[in-house]
Formats: sequence, C-alpha cells, structure tokens
Amino acid sequence: MIKDWFYDKLKADIGIKRFEHSLRVMETSIKLANRYNFSVEKAAIAGLLHDCGKLKGETNLLKVSSDFGIILDSMTKCNSELIHSILGAAIAEKEYGIKDQEILRAIRYHTTGRENMSLLEKIVYIADLIEPGRSFEGVDKLRRLALEDLDKCLLYSLDNTLKFLIEKKKLIHIDSIKARNYLLIQTRTTE
Amino acid sequence: MIKDWFYDKLKADIGIKRFEHSLRVMETSIKLANRYNFSVEKAAIAGLLHDCGKLKGETNLLKVSSDFGIILDSMTKCNSELIHSILGAAIAEKEYGIKDQEILRAIRYHTTGRENMSLLEKIVYIADLIEPGRSFEGVDKLRRLALEDLDKCLLYSLDNTLKFLIEKKKLIHIDSIKARNYLLIQTRTTE
Repeated sequence: MIKDWFYDKLKADIGIKRFEHSLRVMETSIKLANRYNFSVEKAAIAGLLHDCGKLKGETNLLKVSSDFGIILDSMTKCNSELIHSILGAAIAEKEYGIKDQEILRAIRYHTTGRENMSLLEKIVYIADLIEPGRSFEGVDKLRRLALEDLDKCLLYSLDNTLKFLIEKKKLIHIDSIKARNYLLIQTRTTE
Repeated sequence: MIKDWFYDKLKADIGIKRFEHSLRVMETSIKLANRYNFSVEKAAIAGLLHDCGKLKGETNLLKVSSDFGIILDSMTKCNSELIHSILGAAIAEKEYGIKDQEILRAIRYHTTGRENMSLLEKIVYIADLIEPGRSFEGVDKLRRLALEDLDKCLLYSLDNTLKFLIEKKKLIHIDSIKARNYLLIQTRTTE
C-alpha cells in the first residue's frame, strides 16, 4: 500500500523533476495493469518507486550501494544508469518497507529487462519509456504497441535501446540481450 | 603443420565453395599474422580449418555434435550458424589432430567472438569477414581498419553484426556482447 509519506520521502530523495516523472510512470503502470488485468495496487507502487534509487545531487551511488551491502559486477560499476535500479530495489525494501518480491524485481530490472520477465516487470519497464512526458523517435509506436501487445512492445523497445547503445558506443547489459532472445524464442514458439 | 590430406578432407567434408572460402580466409589470416607479428603457421591452420565443422549436404549438425559428446546450450541449438564453430573445434582436434588450444579456440569463437579474445582469435574472426570473396556494405572500411587497428576493426564488425541481427530479428549471442563490452572498456582505459 502506498503511504502518504512515500511521496514526501521520494520527492526529497530524488528531486522534483524525477518525482514528477515517477508520478507519470505510476499513472501509466496503472493504465497498463488495467489493460492486462494485473493488480493496480502493485503496479502503482512499483511505478511510483521505480526510480527511488536515483538519489539526487552529488550522492555517490557506488558508496551508498556498498553501504547497503550490494556487490556490483564490473559491468554495472561502469554504468551509473544501471546502479540506480539495483540500489532502488534495496531502498524500496529497507526504507519504504516493500516486501513483495515481484515489486522489488520490477524496480531491479526496469533499466535492463531480463530473461523471462514477469508481467509487472514488463509493465514498469514499458511505463518508464512511454509515460506522457517522454518524447523520442518511435515513442508513439511504443505507446500504441503497449496497448496492443506488451511483448511486441518490449521487443521493439529493447531493439531500439540496443541500436541506441551501439550508436553511442555504450556498454550493452547481458540481461537486455537475454530479455530479447527469450522474447524472440517465445514469439517463434507461439506463432 | 598443415598436411597435404587436410585439403582433400576439407574439400570433401565442406564442399568446394566453402573450401575455396577457407583458402581465402587462410591467405587473409596469414597477411594479418604478418602485419601483427603472429605465427604465420598457426594463423594458416586456424584460417584453413575455421569452417571444418560446416559439414555439407543434409548432415544433421546437432546429431554429429551429440556424437562428439558436445552439449549445446539452448541458445546455440536455435542457431545452426553457431553449431558449426563448436563442432569445428571438435573436428579439428579429433580428425585433423590439432592439439594447439589457441588454434582450437580461434575455430570455436570465429562466429561469435568472446570476451578477451586472443590475437589469433581476432585474426580468424576478422579474416573470415574480409577475405577477398566477401562483398557487403562496409567491407572496405573493415579491410582498411584490419590493417590499421585490429581492435577497432573487431569493434566495428561486432557493431555491424549486432545491427544486422537486430534488423533480421535474429538471436544475439551473449559472447558477442561480452566481446564488444570488453573491447569498449579496454578502449576507454587505454585512450
């Protein structure tokens, strides 16, 4: 259950801009949960807290992660974008008191995706990309696909992300490749 | 050492077209070995035999792999392009009598690449792509890069391959991503 103080703490921790993004991801997660007959409450909590590890200011995420006893692999250490999801799951559990493992995993994997994602993981991953504040090439197609077929939407967005990372010479997380391969194999099997 | 019967056996096993491709990969591997001060003999053997697992006709590569005691992961089973490299390393060892692990690994990883590739693995991977019979968009840039900077050439070709696999909705092997990430991190460290 979302408690009133969640909003105050989140705003204080991650700053007003990211807080407003989080509200929009919560709204979009609720819409997708409704569309795919999933628990609206769980989707709302996961959507609201998905970025709770994106601590504002000069916070050293590596240091905070270490304080939480999180051991990061070398790949993640090189990519600050990834640290916040892992840290976020720890903060959601220890500071917001979230015990639901499905919610914690949705926060943990909202940046990379992973093999065999749960419905909630897919919802938050996609809501983060298509919330109304987002504007990038292809976002309208993603918004349409999200309501038509969540897996196709996920595959399309993973492909887009991969192309972006290749173009920008950035590291690609193995979990994103595993997410994509799994979806491709699944699509072939079910077609 | 390349023995005369290698040529006859290879031609019989993989067919004339692939045999001729193999000769060109051998020649290109020798050129690259010369350029980067590597053993010409090792490069020649690895280049010649890199496709020795691409058995011609209706051969069931899965069956032959199983006969060689090779256990394939589910990812590889779905991609016949990948099986031949693994099978090739086994055939090179057991039927051509190659004991040199560096040569066997160059055959094993010539399709996917892998994290922290040896110089010989890079040479065969690249020679396979740029041998004179190849013609695809970007091959001239690859040929130029191969003589200038082997790692840049490898990174460029991995990126090209990834874009191709995304476009064609094909599975991406984790080893290729690890090869790319490793090169990216290495490039950043040395720049």
